[in-house]
Amino acid sequence: MLFCAHMTVSLPHDLDEHHREELLAEELNYFTALHRSGKWVHLWRIAGRRGNISVFDVESTEELHELLWHLPLFPFLIIEVTPLVEHPSLAAVSP
Amino acid sequence: MLFCAHMTVSLPHDLDEHHREELLAEELNYFTALHRSGKWVHLWRIAGRRGNISVFDVESTEELHELLWHLPLFPFLIIEVTPLVEHPSLAAVSP
Amino acid sequence: MLFCAHMTVSLPHDLDEHHREELLAEELNYFTALHRSGKWVHLWRIAGRRGNISVFDVESTEELHELLWHLPLFPFLIIEVTPLVEHPSLAAVSP
Amino acid sequence: MLFCAHMTVSLPHDLDEHHREELLAEELNYFTALHRSGKWVHLWRIAGRRGNISVFDVESTEELHELLWHLPLFPFLIIEVTPLVEHPSLAAVSP
Amino acid sequence: MLFCAHMTVSLPHDLDEHHREELLAEELNYFTALHRSGKWVHLWRIAGRRGNISVFDVESTEELHELLWHLPLFPFLIIEVTPLVEHPSLAAVSP
Amino acid sequence: MLFCAHMTVSLPHDLDEHHREELLAEELNYFTALHRSGKWVHLWRIAGRRGNISVFDVESTEELHELLWHLPLFPFLIIEVTPLVEHPSLAAVSP
Amino acid sequence: MLFCAHMTVSLPHDLDEHHREELLAEELNYFTALHRSGKWVHLWRIAGRRGNISVFDVESTEELHELLWHLPLFPFLIIEVTPLVEHPSLAAVSP
Amino acid sequence: MLFCAHMTVSLPHDLDEHHREELLAEELNYFTALHRSGKWVHLWRIAGRRGNISVFDVESTEELHELLWHLPLFPFLIIEVTPLVEHPSLAAVSP
Amino acid sequence: MLFCAHMTVSLPHDLDEHHREELLAEELNYFTALHRSGKWVHLWRIAGRRGNISVFDVESTEELHELLWHLPLFPFLIIEVTPLVEHPSLAAVSP
Amino acid sequence: MLFCAHMTVSLPHDLDEHHREELLAEELNYFTALHRSGKWVHLWRIAGRRGNISVFDVESTEELHELLWHLPLFPFLIIEVTPLVEHPSLAAVSP
Repeated sequence: MLFCAHMTVSLPHDLDEHHREELLAEELNYFTALHRSGKWVHLWRIAGRRGNISVFDVESTEELHELLWHLPLFPFLIIEVTPLVEHPSLAAVSP
Repeated sequence: MLFCAHMTVSLPHDLDEHHREELLAEELNYFTALHRSGKWVHLWRIAGRRGNISVFDVESTEELHELLWHLPLFPFLIIEVTPLVEHPSLAAVSP
Repeated sequence: MLFCAHMTVSLPHDLDEHHREELLAEELNYFTALHRSGKWVHLWRIAGRRGNISVFDVESTEELHELLWHLPLFPFLIIEVTPLVEHPSLAAVSP
Repeated sequence: MLFCAHMTVSLPHDLDEHHREELLAEELNYFTALHRSGKWVHLWRIAGRRGNISVFDVESTEELHELLWHLPLFPFLIIEVTPLVEHPSLAAVSP
Repeated sequence: MLFCAHMTVSLPHDLDEHHREELLAEELNYFTALHRSGKWVHLWRIAGRRGNISVFDVESTEELHELLWHLPLFPFLIIEVTPLVEHPSLAAVSP
Repeated sequence: MLFCAHMTVSLPHDLDEHHREELLAEELNYFTALHRSGKWVHLWRIAGRRGNISVFDVESTEELHELLWHLPLFPFLIIEVTPLVEHPSLAAVSP
Repeated sequence: MLFCAHMTVSLPHDLDEHHREELLAEELNYFTALHRSGKWVHLWRIAGRRGNISVFDVESTEELHELLWHLPLFPFLIIEVTPLVEHPSLAAVSP
Repeated sequence: MLFCAHMTVSLPHDLDEHHREELLAEELNYFTALHRSGKWVHLWRIAGRRGNISVFDVESTEELHELLWHLPLFPFLIIEVTPLVEHPSLAAVSP
Repeated sequence: MLFCAHMTVSLPHDLDEHHREELLAEELNYFTALHRSGKWVHLWRIAGRRGNISVFDVESTEELHELLWHLPLFPFLIIEVTPLVEHPSLAAVSP
Repeated sequence: MLFCAHMTVSLPHDLDEHHREELLAEELNYFTALHRSGKWVHLWRIAGRRGNISVFDVESTEELHELLWHLPLFPFLIIEVTPLVEHPSLAAVSP
């Protein structure tokens, strides 16, 4: 089941540099694990912004929420979730 | 080069039924050709809406514009284009 | 799996009265079947508006989309879907 | 009498950890009492957000306001209240 | 129980003149009855606009909705309802 | 001459508790005097919000501005002013 | 007493050309009379738009509303009214 | 003197095809003359939209308004004008 | 050449009282000089707000920008500029 | 390939004066290099604002993102990117 998540990151200007590096490293590890497990299918940087457009493939809204809620950067994120379904045109194309 | 396009479709209520069927059939053909050529990479229906989130992989903004401008439904679409780039986390994951 | 749908109805002023009555009757039948099957769990009218707040309990986003797409009033609706999950406070309360 | 409340929580990043834990514990107690009394009928977490959609069943707008105003997290909440009424389709379905 | 209703009127330009006069006359009768019964407490025209700010004193949200839904101009109105309660400062002033 | 003022209060989280109490006490005194003089005609709390809808009856926009500008909470208020006039339906009802 | 009015004109594309000319001629006459009487003090075209920024000097909100309501183009206008007062800096400058 | 104009074109769906072709041809002629005279300096199509971002170099706001007002497509345009000035960084770069 | 500037002032709550007084005194001097020179033609306080609507008469957008950029309160202002031209109705009225 | 970037600068009021000067000097150097290389084609200050409208000519969205991401002021910027293409009217004009 697919969900698009549009994320905007707002790191405070006065965030401790060390803490910031740690957060970003944890975020990378977190993404890596989810991407390898096939949950976090797509991740694109929005050009010119600290933000991204992501697509998740999960079993349920509960699983989606758990994944997002435990993002290391979660307290600094504004996330908009859009539920997706297969488009009929794509279904028609597939053999 | 990747671009996300968020499309909202507004078909007039009084559109002739035959014309409408034709438009939708042309739209499907148009998508099919572009999808097979690898230009229209992703197409997801937004749940509960006549609209979609698409990702295009094109050579240039000119090519993107040409593809969108000639969509059979173009006069009935509101399209928001977001340029995308590879996210560094994804780059770090790849072998 | 729960989804909130906020629906706004915009019936054209010049809609044929008979057609309008038919649509509303079909809408009622449609709702009745889904409510009895336990899919359309909640339906509240928003005071002072032709619109509603609904909660659906479905197996997937695909099922949700199918339900909404086939609403007899669909061409006249603006629908915003919000995925919901059980709130931890509610989980803590339950025995 | 039913009211929908859409709540967004904005906890300051520099909130003292202990104070924060206390607030969340008080919030849980507060919810528990109101839920058991039948006032706070529904509470759903919005997937991917620190926020919720709630439905209250109260005697009056005064009672609603008192309940919301004394939420332990009230100073950190943005609340939008929507008055609800029974939908005629639901009334038609009930025996 | 008090509710503020902010109403914006959008009469179509091509509305039949006779129908329009009828609607406005019905609207006046409707208001008159509700005002005399003490339900429609306040009604102010917004300067420079075809619209108003109203305050209703009703027994319930159901009664409020019935009153608004049956406004002769209802199909041409956009109504935003805000539930009100007595302000503590006013309570402190009263003897 | 009537004006509606929609006020939203944003007290900073770290406002000194004593200062805060003083401000709220001054605000009450300020309101009391204006209400008794017939200038601040209506004051309603918006349910679930620290904010209000007020109606002022003043001689001029200058008087209105002076009243609002000297509100003890003025630096923490966002105020939207709407000029009102007697609604013709109300005029028609009065004997 | 001064009020700023920001007006946007939306003439329907299919407005009868003769009717349109009449309306614009009436609008000019209307403005001329009010400008000569000192009521409609300022009128500026917004560059690149069919719209204007106006300043009215009237005795009351009632007078303002009457002036605006009877504008020949009123059914095609969206008007936003802002009450103005003399700025203290200007008062300080005047001898 | 430079102005940026962001233009959105909304051609009605039922515009007569011949009239539409004429309008677009006149628009091209209009642009050509202004571009050659150095008034309409830049014109870019916004990718995926019927609209453009333009830069005009004119003697005055009056000249700008005249140019825009007489655009053949003016009744179908929404234009937002932004006054521009030379950026100090660019001035520093120039020899 | 005329420009309307809509200014909103956001002075931080914790601004040093002395610095604040200085800023406001400088702002007054700045306005006084520009008003006497005929550049800052109109200045109105918006009733109930710390903000103003101003009209400037300048030689160019460069001059306008210089005037606004050097406002003592500039770092605390949000300014929206609207280019104005003489309205044809006003031109028709003048002898 | 052309992109328009609309940038708004929000420097914190309490930014260290020395750090601020350094940032602005680095920004100037950064712009100078990119302008000379033909990447940052246009840069205009928006009159009355700390912000700009820029046009970039780059090989790809990746290059655009790299340029923007490394702007010395990047943490203080809100950037909106609009992909541009050559307008057919301009193409028609060119010999």
